[in-house]
Amino acid sequence: MRRILLAAILLGMPSSAFADEGMWTFHDFPAAKVKDRYKFNPDQAWLDKARMSSARTNNCSASFVSEQGLVMTNHHCAHECLAGLSSADHDYVKNGFWAAKLDDEKKCPDLHVERLEAITDITERVGKATAGKTGAAYTTALRDVSATIEKECATAPEFHCQVVDLFHGGQFVLHKYKRYTDVRVVFAPEIASAFFGGDPDNFEFPRFDLDVSFLRVYENGKPAATPDHFSWSPAGPKDGELTFVSGNPGTTLRELTMAQLEFQRDVSMALRLASYAEWRGQLTQFMRESDENHRVAEDWLFGVENSLKAYKGWSTALSDEKQVEKKADDEAALRAKIKADAKVSADVGNAYDIIEKAYADFRPFYHRYWWLEATRHRGDLFDHALHLVRGANERGVANGKRLDEYRDAALPEIEDELKSPAPAYASREKLALAFWLGKLREELGADDPTVKALLGKDTPETVAARWVDGTKLGDPAERLRLWKGGKQAIAASKDPLIVAARALDPAARKVRKMWDDNVQGVVRAQTEKIAKAKFAINGRSSYPDATFTLRLSYGAVKGYTSSAHGTKVTPFTTFAGAFARATGAFPFELPASWLAAQKAIDGKITLDFVTTNDIIGGNSGSPVFNKDLQIVGLIFDGNIESLAGDFWYDESVNRAVAVSSEGLIHALSKIYKADRLVDELRPKH
Amino acid sequence: MRRILLAAILLGMPSSAFADEGMWTFHDFPAAKVKDRYKFNPDQAWLDKARMSSARTNNCSASFVSEQGLVMTNHHCAHECLAGLSSADHDYVKNGFWAAKLDDEKKCPDLHVERLEAITDITERVGKATAGKTGAAYTTALRDVSATIEKECATAPEFHCQVVDLFHGGQFVLHKYKRYTDVRVVFAPEIASAFFGGDPDNFEFPRFDLDVSFLRVYENGKPAATPDHFSWSPAGPKDGELTFVSGNPGTTLRELTMAQLEFQRDVSMALRLASYAEWRGQLTQFMRESDENHRVAEDWLFGVENSLKAYKGWSTALSDEKQVEKKADDEAALRAKIKADAKVSADVGNAYDIIEKAYADFRPFYHRYWWLEATRHRGDLFDHALHLVRGANERGVANGKRLDEYRDAALPEIEDELKSPAPAYASREKLALAFWLGKLREELGADDPTVKALLGKDTPETVAARWVDGTKLGDPAERLRLWKGGKQAIAASKDPLIVAARALDPAARKVRKMWDDNVQGVVRAQTEKIAKAKFAINGRSSYPDATFTLRLSYGAVKGYTSSAHGTKVTPFTTFAGAFARATGAFPFELPASWLAAQKAIDGKITLDFVTTNDIIGGNSGSPVFNKDLQIVGLIFDGNIESLAGDFWYDESVNRAVAVSSEGLIHALSKIYKADRLVDELRPKH
Repeated sequence: MRRILLAAILLGMPSSAFADEGMWTFHDFPAAKVKDRYKFNPDQAWLDKARMSSARTNNCSASFVSEQGLVMTNHHCAHECLAGLSSADHDYVKNGFWAAKLDDEKKCPDLHVERLEAITDITERVGKATAGKTGAAYTTALRDVSATIEKECATAPEFHCQVVDLFHGGQFVLHKYKRYTDVRVVFAPEIASAFFGGDPDNFEFPRFDLDVSFLRVYENGKPAATPDHFSWSPAGPKDGELTFVSGNPGTTLRELTMAQLEFQRDVSMALRLASYAEWRGQLTQFMRESDENHRVAEDWLFGVENSLKAYKGWSTALSDEKQVEKKADDEAALRAKIKADAKVSADVGNAYDIIEKAYADFRPFYHRYWWLEATRHRGDLFDHALHLVRGANERGVANGKRLDEYRDAALPEIEDELKSPAPAYASREKLALAFWLGKLREELGADDPTVKALLGKDTPETVAARWVDGTKLGDPAERLRLWKGGKQAIAASKDPLIVAARALDPAARKVRKMWDDNVQGVVRAQTEKIAKAKFAINGRSSYPDATFTLRLSYGAVKGYTSSAHGTKVTPFTTFAGAFARATGAFPFELPASWLAAQKAIDGKITLDFVTTNDIIGGNSGSPVFNKDLQIVGLIFDGNIESLAGDFWYDESVNRAVAVSSEGLIHALSKIYKADRLVDELRPKH
Repeated sequence: MRRILLAAILLGMPSSAFADEGMWTFHDFPAAKVKDRYKFNPDQAWLDKARMSSARTNNCSASFVSEQGLVMTNHHCAHECLAGLSSADHDYVKNGFWAAKLDDEKKCPDLHVERLEAITDITERVGKATAGKTGAAYTTALRDVSATIEKECATAPEFHCQVVDLFHGGQFVLHKYKRYTDVRVVFAPEIASAFFGGDPDNFEFPRFDLDVSFLRVYENGKPAATPDHFSWSPAGPKDGELTFVSGNPGTTLRELTMAQLEFQRDVSMALRLASYAEWRGQLTQFMRESDENHRVAEDWLFGVENSLKAYKGWSTALSDEKQVEKKADDEAALRAKIKADAKVSADVGNAYDIIEKAYADFRPFYHRYWWLEATRHRGDLFDHALHLVRGANERGVANGKRLDEYRDAALPEIEDELKSPAPAYASREKLALAFWLGKLREELGADDPTVKALLGKDTPETVAARWVDGTKLGDPAERLRLWKGGKQAIAASKDPLIVAARALDPAARKVRKMWDDNVQGVVRAQTEKIAKAKFAINGRSSYPDATFTLRLSYGAVKGYTSSAHGTKVTPFTTFAGAFARATGAFPFELPASWLAAQKAIDGKITLDFVTTNDIIGGNSGSPVFNKDLQIVGLIFDGNIESLAGDFWYDESVNRAVAVSSEGLIHALSKIYKADRLVDELRPKH
């Protein structure tokens, strides 16, 4: 999938760890477990060095891999930068990028790299500040003390500090980051190599991708000194070898109760599968119609296919009776333990039942919620229009009472969106709106008042065309004018998309409020109660759910038997495999650089491999390293079975997918002739 | 949906009847229940008259509605006849059909109408013939005695006899039908009226369709005398009124065990929803590209949308916790009763566990089975090719060992298909093949040997185009040549589709055999054991599962609260509602005849209505009549909630949807000026 943050529902409760399961914090790493299983005991110095060699970008993981500020991450983590630097003359996404000299390295606007310098336990201080408080008073006190602590910590402009809530209030830690804001791109291969196999191979293994990019952090216009960094394994990954992955997993759904899982399986997944699949079908055929259509809709299709594959993985996971039964047993065991402790039991109350009821009550409204409010497939222009209509209204309301995305802290992001010069292609906008309006009529019924207000007596296609042809919202200046004009400007506007968004808003807002208040709000509060109970029972012997902060997982290079195809899968692929798989046609088309270098390439060298490390979205770009803190690989995906990892970890089939260190060097050297980079990565070679 | 036969899995075990549930046989009709609830006691004469006034066509239900052989059924049941009679000059589907004079009535080739003249219990005779036999010996004995009985019964060419197995061998009855083979069309409205609302309104209520056609049966070139027929209600349907529906429900899935329901919910529905939705998306966009594309793909889209809506209804039903729990309770209760009876318990053995295991074992192969073998979306030409390749092989194998569709009795149907002059439009054939090949690669993986054999190094689109452009299978003569040429001709053929079908066959056949032998075969045998046990316990107090033979259901005209939208739904719609809903654009476009007659129409008259009658696919065209044997309506659909009726009957929301007798007469008189027909239907009016 290319493991950028995926899971959307943020909760947070640890699962009981077994096998190689766990996204462990650096300050509570279970070294003894690693020693038991793998005969290696990471000490504090080792953990510190691993932490200081790891990095985080805006939305990915990364690592320092030289003492001159060289940073390794995925190609897809630098995709936006590469696209932004491209022009009519230079397409760095398609053709790759290589700075043959230091001076050729190009700055990525808006990209930063952070290193976690220090972790401090502040549970006691937070506890004092919030003692005796509940509800809104607790939230305010927590926000205030966090702001104070973060301010005290940020002693220089380059330091960014973050109070992190682990175990839902069970532990608070202060993370102090050093942030590099001058980040330049050094190397990226062609996307045809980075994403070889495209959607058919996405979330799959065997795999043959070179999903890498190298960046460099600068200070004062010079490469930054990074004495703490990973060195390069001379041997590459070996079968059975102990591997570590440090990175920033975003969040999982491992804390969901059985009632929530059942809602996902029975309601949410069926709807998502069907609606994403239908939209994918329309997009696919639209793109076949012309090269221009292909060009303008390609990134939409990528997003849709990536999500669709994830939903299919989730749907399959949730129908795995054995795992669901195990999950049910775990929940029953926890509930028994809660019941056995009078104090804990009183705190939890009937949290499980309240959660179940919240979903059950919302069930009849979920389709309405989806099609009126939650769908993402109605185009960019309509999204702008709705932001303008809602933003005008929400900014007139007290901050605490607004829809989340219009709180003061979130407004800059919306303004950035409205200001964005990214073109809104009329053809794809019409396609998206016709799709959405058609589904709206189908799912809500032709009698629904909102459907009638939007469609009148016309077809979805006619209305979509009229809106797009008639709107001025394709122009960022017009969007900004309406944004700044606020309520008055919106009320006066006759722009067809503004008129449409005004017509949609009341019904959409109504069902959104139901979801926010009666499901999300209720469930969050009850989930916290359960999480706290679990923490009271288990303490820090299990790991807190992922929070897009630095974690360490351990595992091993290991093959498996595919649940999808029943075949035995060896843990390695080779360059020869890539050439054998190449067809010359998208998405199995190797770039010209590979074909030209074919003779120089040693086909037996490992290209990609899999490990049992427990990763999740956010781990994209994470280094895979051995006990000697040497890079053996670079995480870029999980296998199809790892999609179940959102719900639980199953060591028998859950695999992280990585580019091998050996393959990387070989490609840099033989295909890309990036000698300067090879020398920097392996100075003694 | 237009309730033509839908459910594909044929099993057969009665459910415990409550409320208005039940598709009862005429010889075991629960008159006492009707009397208890509705204060009317149907006697034998009444039942006989109702039976003799009812009819069955090739795949629909119907009724006799005059003494001159006039037959009423749905428009969609006569669709094929109307399309067949159409020519470049006359499009009877689009423009409707009206024989102003008797002489203008046109014969429908291949359509017949049957009346069930007699029902005889032959359980004892069959029992003697099969006594002590099991397995294949039992099957042979049953087939032999059935053939003998049917032959004895068919005393004249117009009589067709059928031995019907009720309760899985619990009771055998002999049905003696009089068959009319000269069937002529009298009247049909425009499809825009018959299917007003199209897919958005399909399976929905409120509804505004005039889904009717009138046929006439002839004998010796003259209208047949049909003294037994329904008369016409002067009043039309009234709220709360007792209603009967006689018709030929095809089959339900009410006998599925919990393990089977869970397989449907967790595996089968997710796959179907996603694959049908994606195919629908491609078709929809393809049809937007040009009028020609629209024309050639319209009937495919109709089929896909109809199925998709059914699957959505099923998926929703299977996630209804209350109903699923009730179903589980019913199963547990039956199992307890089985256990309590040593003899019955010994007969059933571990049938439930065997069924569960059969599905669980097949689960990892279901996707392969679907995409290699079960998918229907790879075009007509490929289907021809596979029939030719398989037919050549299968005809060389002993009849009993062939794949079902190549048994001797089934071969004429395949030959008809191969001979059919229906054009295979290249553009839609390419679309379907590109879709299928793309999915095959995605779902089986690019490494799968069959995928490699089919695609080679090309894209799905390229391969699809090459096959369609290169094949001669669009020509019926070429298909017949290959069919007659058998194994040799197939082996020698270089037609790209024959080559492709040969490449597919081994892998597809392998997984098909697994499904046939390890799931279907196993489950059929175990289901029969359970059904027999249930019959041993309950006897004939419950109804046997539907078998596309004549049944009678009772119910009432009654509104409900929509589970989909939470709204109260009154049981009637009116002509005014149709005009209010009309937009002038497909699928909400009323035909010109309606617009021209608008002033003459009384908007308050009932057009469609709903009843609680328990119906299912096969009931299309069934008469709705009152206790005086007067027609009050014509079944043409069920509401969206009635899709759950495949699994269970829920009186609170399950509704049959019908055209009202009053609305019919009004439309015939005011819109279609079909006075001859109106006079025949209501001679005293």
